Amino acid sequence: MHSVHEFAEFICELDKLKAVKRQITLPADNYRQENSAEHSWHVALMATMLTPYATSPIDVSRVIKMILIHDIVEIDAGDMFAFNSQLDHDAQAEKEVAAAQRIFGLLPEPINREMLALWLEFEEATSVDAEFAKAMDRVLPVFQNMQDQGGSWKKHTISRSKIEKRNIHLQSCAPKLWDYVMSQLDHAVKQGWLHQ
Amino acid sequence: MHSVHEFAEFICELDKLKAVKRQITLPADNYRQENSAEHSWHVALMATMLTPYATSPIDVSRVIKMILIHDIVEIDAGDMFAFNSQLDHDAQAEKEVAAAQRIFGLLPEPINREMLALWLEFEEATSVDAEFAKAMDRVLPVFQNMQDQGGSWKKHTISRSKIEKRNIHLQSCAPKLWDYVMSQLDHAVKQGWLHQ
Repeated sequence: MHSVHEFAEFICELDKLKAVKRQITLPADNYRQENSAEHSWHVALMATMLTPYATSPIDVSRVIKMILIHDIVEIDAGDMFAFNSQLDHDAQAEKEVAAAQRIFGLLPEPINREMLALWLEFEEATSVDAEFAKAMDRVLPVFQNMQDQGGSWKKHTISRSKIEKRNIHLQSCAPKLWDYVMSQLDHAVKQGWLHQ
Repeated sequence: MHSVHEFAEFICELDKLKAVKRQITLPADNYRQENSAEHSWHVALMATMLTPYATSPIDVSRVIKMILIHDIVEIDAGDMFAFNSQLDHDAQAEKEVAAAQRIFGLLPEPINREMLALWLEFEEATSVDAEFAKAMDRVLPVFQNMQDQGGSWKKHTISRSKIEKRNIHLQSCAPKLWDYVMSQLDHAVKQGWLHQ
């Protein structure tokens, strides 16, 4: 068994994700920007509630682990707004792979490789677990922006089609959630929170 | 199956935990106070790494769920510093039970009762899963305060015996972790970060 000391550096490194800011602002905390650590908690907890909506059998424990680690790379690479250009996203993807290698590399063998593989599985959505985990990450801002009368959508004049496209995996992996999101987007457009 | 709408209020309510401040301050983010949402993420992710140290077989998925929900009651009851008086803790416990009833009560049946039961199991540490989950919650500040040269221990002139007492469950549920914590506390006392 590994010495506990071999985990200490990684555990302490995680504190840095609490300094990575996202586009969502929090009405519950004077509209400060949300950070990626608290976001990861929120997605993970929401996912434990919503797993019954998955059409394929999923391994909840793997899904939650993926969600807990999915943003760690932002410690080095920063958070990128979902609706930036493809060119930006390609450059970001390169930075994130390097970040994953450095940060998971702080862990002992073979856990470092297992974590890197789990992170890649999430990134590439190459399994039903990863597809569901990724869909959870993408659907939470729908709940948050609806609650905040448009929130970051309104601020950045986002169109409905972009949100649909970003959540398209829901349609196959959790169709009842997809239907709910569609009805929410209808409402958001009617309210002027989202462009048609 | 429940309508997704029945989960929306609970999911949005969770945002409020991001506004609950703890005693730990974060060197990685200009020494601002840590909040209970990002703390819960940190404990959950650390726990996924450290489960091999548990002496009894534990159900990782239950442990992680408990950790993800354990602080939700602070939305109503606030966070209490671990080393306040017993009287303070008794009053806090009452507030927390009322909070758990209100907040988990936002969920549909039977999930509301399942979550309340899981939260109580954690609070009372009435199973090996809960005992391990609780030990994780209590050991993370040891890593954080060691990294921050005493951090909140130094600020509040905490004694070594209090930290030992607070982490005593580790001794039986994860003895190798307990040994590590003891060696860290030796070092902290030598450095003057912790009173003997």
